[in-house]
Amino acid sequence: MPEQMKAAVFVEPGRIVLDEKPVPEIGPNDALMRITTTTICGTDIHILKGEYPVERGLTVGHEPVGVIEALGSNVTGYREGQRVITGAICPSGWSYASLDGLHAQDGQDCAHGLKPLGGWRFGNTIDGCQAEYVRVPDARANLAPVPEGLSDEQVLMCPDIMSTGFGGAESADLRIGDTVAVFAQGPIGLCATAGAKLRGATTIIAVETVPERKERAAAMGADYVLDFNQVDPVEEIGRITEGRGVDAAIEALGLQETFEGALRVLKPGGVLSSLGVYSKDLSVPLDAFQAGLGDHRIVTTLCPGGKERMRRLMNVIEGGRVDLEPLVTHRYSLDGIEEAYDLFGNQRDGVLKVAVTP
Amino acid sequence: MPEQMKAAVFVEPGRIVLDEKPVPEIGPNDALMRITTTTICGTDIHILKGEYPVERGLTVGHEPVGVIEALGSNVTGYREGQRVITGAICPSGWSYASLDGLHAQDGQDCAHGLKPLGGWRFGNTIDGCQAEYVRVPDARANLAPVPEGLSDEQVLMCPDIMSTGFGGAESADLRIGDTVAVFAQGPIGLCATAGAKLRGATTIIAVETVPERKERAAAMGADYVLDFNQVDPVEEIGRITEGRGVDAAIEALGLQETFEGALRVLKPGGVLSSLGVYSKDLSVPLDAFQAGLGDHRIVTTLCPGGKERMRRLMNVIEGGRVDLEPLVTHRYSLDGIEEAYDLFGNQRDGVLKVAVTP
Amino acid sequence: MPEQMKAAVFVEPGRIVLDEKPVPEIGPNDALMRITTTTICGTDIHILKGEYPVERGLTVGHEPVGVIEALGSNVTGYREGQRVITGAICPSGWSYASLDGLHAQDGQDCAHGLKPLGGWRFGNTIDGCQAEYVRVPDARANLAPVPEGLSDEQVLMCPDIMSTGFGGAESADLRIGDTVAVFAQGPIGLCATAGAKLRGATTIIAVETVPERKERAAAMGADYVLDFNQVDPVEEIGRITEGRGVDAAIEALGLQETFEGALRVLKPGGVLSSLGVYSKDLSVPLDAFQAGLGDHRIVTTLCPGGKERMRRLMNVIEGGRVDLEPLVTHRYSLDGIEEAYDLFGNQRDGVLKVAVTP
Amino acid sequence: MPEQMKAAVFVEPGRIVLDEKPVPEIGPNDALMRITTTTICGTDIHILKGEYPVERGLTVGHEPVGVIEALGSNVTGYREGQRVITGAICPSGWSYASLDGLHAQDGQDCAHGLKPLGGWRFGNTIDGCQAEYVRVPDARANLAPVPEGLSDEQVLMCPDIMSTGFGGAESADLRIGDTVAVFAQGPIGLCATAGAKLRGATTIIAVETVPERKERAAAMGADYVLDFNQVDPVEEIGRITEGRGVDAAIEALGLQETFEGALRVLKPGGVLSSLGVYSKDLSVPLDAFQAGLGDHRIVTTLCPGGKERMRRLMNVIEGGRVDLEPLVTHRYSLDGIEEAYDLFGNQRDGVLKVAVTP
Repeated sequence: MPEQMKAAVFVEPGRIVLDEKPVPEIGPNDALMRITTTTICGTDIHILKGEYPVERGLTVGHEPVGVIEALGSNVTGYREGQRVITGAICPSGWSYASLDGLHAQDGQDCAHGLKPLGGWRFGNTIDGCQAEYVRVPDARANLAPVPEGLSDEQVLMCPDIMSTGFGGAESADLRIGDTVAVFAQGPIGLCATAGAKLRGATTIIAVETVPERKERAAAMGADYVLDFNQVDPVEEIGRITEGRGVDAAIEALGLQETFEGALRVLKPGGVLSSLGVYSKDLSVPLDAFQAGLGDHRIVTTLCPGGKERMRRLMNVIEGGRVDLEPLVTHRYSLDGIEEAYDLFGNQRDGVLKVAVTP
Repeated sequence: MPEQMKAAVFVEPGRIVLDEKPVPEIGPNDALMRITTTTICGTDIHILKGEYPVERGLTVGHEPVGVIEALGSNVTGYREGQRVITGAICPSGWSYASLDGLHAQDGQDCAHGLKPLGGWRFGNTIDGCQAEYVRVPDARANLAPVPEGLSDEQVLMCPDIMSTGFGGAESADLRIGDTVAVFAQGPIGLCATAGAKLRGATTIIAVETVPERKERAAAMGADYVLDFNQVDPVEEIGRITEGRGVDAAIEALGLQETFEGALRVLKPGGVLSSLGVYSKDLSVPLDAFQAGLGDHRIVTTLCPGGKERMRRLMNVIEGGRVDLEPLVTHRYSLDGIEEAYDLFGNQRDGVLKVAVTP
Repeated sequence: MPEQMKAAVFVEPGRIVLDEKPVPEIGPNDALMRITTTTICGTDIHILKGEYPVERGLTVGHEPVGVIEALGSNVTGYREGQRVITGAICPSGWSYASLDGLHAQDGQDCAHGLKPLGGWRFGNTIDGCQAEYVRVPDARANLAPVPEGLSDEQVLMCPDIMSTGFGGAESADLRIGDTVAVFAQGPIGLCATAGAKLRGATTIIAVETVPERKERAAAMGADYVLDFNQVDPVEEIGRITEGRGVDAAIEALGLQETFEGALRVLKPGGVLSSLGVYSKDLSVPLDAFQAGLGDHRIVTTLCPGGKERMRRLMNVIEGGRVDLEPLVTHRYSLDGIEEAYDLFGNQRDGVLKVAVTP
Repeated sequence: MPEQMKAAVFVEPGRIVLDEKPVPEIGPNDALMRITTTTICGTDIHILKGEYPVERGLTVGHEPVGVIEALGSNVTGYREGQRVITGAICPSGWSYASLDGLHAQDGQDCAHGLKPLGGWRFGNTIDGCQAEYVRVPDARANLAPVPEGLSDEQVLMCPDIMSTGFGGAESADLRIGDTVAVFAQGPIGLCATAGAKLRGATTIIAVETVPERKERAAAMGADYVLDFNQVDPVEEIGRITEGRGVDAAIEALGLQETFEGALRVLKPGGVLSSLGVYSKDLSVPLDAFQAGLGDHRIVTTLCPGGKERMRRLMNVIEGGRVDLEPLVTHRYSLDGIEEAYDLFGNQRDGVLKVAVTP
């Protein structure tokens, strides 16, 4: 094993660069994972732009597919060389929050074990996986073996995009026969569409304007795809549902417009499942909120993580229920990651997700 | 039975007056209820002020305790002279929404059977019960016999205040050992406090400033009562929970301050259960909302209704679990209802609820 | 409208015959439905054999597809000539049980509104629908308009088979990525398989031996089909799940063997969802039940009914999610219903369901 | 710290004796707890009698209250000398089952991390706590600090009796206004009664015959206490509920009679929550089970564990909601534990629980 490795490092707002760093050392409960494929997330772009603050010098990236390079002395049940993924969210398993099932809000290092976003560590509070190697903390809770026969790209969405998008559908508490609207069809919105279908929604209305995404939305299960540059989605959804409204609306972008649209199309008693990362205060219009009397629920979901979650998601892929490989539209070596950031950050060339291979 | 009766009628914004009206006629699925006790709700004050629009000439009031005077030809299972209550919300039972359990959003008269607030009929879309008699629609779904031994005042809160306040605790999805904050301790907030205790919350923090309400809050189960004129509730709750935040916060007033306070004291993964009737757009501050990544749930609850709900609530009273009679602080005859409105609307003399007896 | 009609009538154990009866009269909350297609259920065979007792002279059948012939005076929101279905279970909407969501255990005619199987009326406590006409009680809660473009045979499974089978999957509380075993692939088991897929199960193991049913199971979503005459399903499921057991097992036959098999393949913490109609006491083996310490759940489900349920199920069909037409393997006119009973009761000729058209 | 300690050791069926053993050594993720108070559980009596097999030489006991004596090198967030309890069930936090919330069925040492009863380790698969010291595995997931001001005896029921009994009420999915029957009022049944009250049941019917237990049941919240030697509980519960049946019945003994009684008193749609440890196959009578058509749920619950659970339960005690100290009827030093077994095993002298202090 080499002592040095390449890693994409946050230098300052506007600059993530490929740099040399020491290969991470691991403690007794950690594992060292050699990355074979990773990708760039919208959140990484927030980091790049300085909208989400991280420490300078941090390795970014939180979607690792790879191979176990080394195991800490307490990490039983795995073997070196094993193909694994790790969720973007790495719960400890042992904090109060984690024992309560709140894995994404885990606080390993605080007294009551509960911290906003505390389960998200890679590329946030510890070095991430846009690198040749990554240290996986609480390895026994997080290393998820990849079933034989699945390729890196087939499982590349599991750590974040699929877990988050499906989480949005799960939090919407769908029932068989539900009508669901999904606002925005980027990678997460597309997975929310697929997740809604997988939970039994039978009328799925996607809202999007980018042609490649509209097309992909239909392929993922949308029964209607509304282009918000051509129709008013709120009006159109009113028409489709004959004034009834939708049972659930999933917000997958993080803007006032999409949040508000999702609220306005809800039936009384409906659920707004919000996935977006917002960057401004939100306004909840009195009429859309029915003055607080509409029996509405607004639910937010941060990516569920941990090896059991990863096992389930890979089972979905293995069972042939959903195919997320087509979301990988571009491929780069780790050496080209700065170029990949440029493409992905500017949403050029119909990009959905890029695969980055060290 | 007389042909004419007295009724409190909405004339125009600012004026609800006692007037003479014909005793209601009933159809085959209706019942005629003779009111023995009723009360005034905060919502009636919104109506009085013209903030919530109803038709001129409508009899107001939605909290009826009384006796069955007459039964429609299809209404089996009851007898004239039987003591009953009816919920403020009168579901049809047969609409799509009602069959789906969404009784408060029932839409008996619309194609898809689902309408915002549609289950609220008394004093909203049909004549209410601040009168000598009231027509009860879909009587078999709504007439709830009062158990022997319970007085009118003991069950007077069941139709609305208790059902709504308890509903706020139920929607908060409490678990044994939870810490709960309740913002505002008017009648509904007090019932939310009682409801939170009844669901197993073991640390209940009430926020209120009116002395009589603070005292009552402690009697209803609050472990802490914070006076927001003396301390900053958000800071103080942070201190009490040692930075952990509360598992659930119940909003029981309908203002930006209480809504925002409730959001700010939530732990990641916590539930904001909102009961208030708002009169302005709400703002959701980015930091309190953790940019949408806090696994928060915001849930609103309109008063659950129907005879099964009323049966359960009266069971709570009969079982001695909660005593709501002390909420009745003032008593009026129907003839004095204009005076009662004046007292209640201006929150004078430490009033919590008034009992009005025709 | 004629005064007399043909109807399949229970005469005595062993004899259901086609007879002449008066066309039913309707009350103010009823509707008269002219049957265009109906079918025979396994439960009807229990009635035929005298295993499930009904009154002599009763018209049997509980799966009606047809047209509104007449409406009672209170039945608003429908028009004569409208194509509708009605669930096998006809909740009142207004009983305590129905208001509590327990539609199948509705007790319209008992003091507390709750009665075992009380929601099942057609061909059980009132005349059923293997006839030219049927009276639909509590019509506004039960008449469900058929969406344009759907044929009788496409919606023929909604009233019972689909609702029950899907109900078994719903009661199993499935999550994305679950592994599910379904014991027996008759019409209800096949719908349970389809329902499990629709709720996100990603490994579905069906157990069956009849060749036509095995084939159909695979078409409905089973990833594995185990023939219990060729392998021991408990052992084989252990092997497939690598000793983990299944998250849920659905029993769809009503025998000790299938019940016990379903229990034995459960993981600790798993759910046994039972749909079968049993005819003997069941034995729960100590080891399979882990002495009561396995965090198991055993859940039984009677067919969910009411128009909202029917609306949702027809939405599944309309949305193209599941195609149940292939379950109709044989067709008879009402005149040939005795022959249809003979074929279906003896499970000849690979029969799954018969369509019967008056 | 001494090298040797006293411990109650299983020798052979019929013999648990106080013996000398080395003080346990701890690994990096373990803690060493010095026991200040412990108790004997009904399950220990099963072990004593050889009905539940454990290895010879094993230290028994799984209800530890004490002080941290030493911490493994990875165990952060605690300090030596801190007062703590540990649940009878010690989840790993990191197994598949544990990450899925199935802490009691944790399988730390098996490939899929899921094993019947696998979370129960003390006095089952590893040395227990009827000793001067005990090794706590996965210490960060299990050590729960005792709030200041609570005595050993106040929290002595938390590790098992209270967690299990409350778990029975929680699994019964109670709602405000429910009627609940609890069969048997030993320590666990008494906690189920208290738990049912804490979840909002308003009519609680306890079934018991031992005078001390009947009295204690009333003190814990039972509205009715039925002596099965004086009345037939099934009949009497039918009378109390006016034929409706109970919403939930909790079985807290482990016999066919109590299981069957619990099933027979259920309303259609009701929940049988089973806590007992059975020692024979169970029979489910066809009529009581309504042939599988009663929408019944039968749920079993093994004691929930882990430090978050312990935190919540101690909060209940601290909040003054329930007082379990009166369950401690007898006190012994560890030296007298054989005598304590004799008293407790033979249920002499009105014993409920014994406190044992090393």
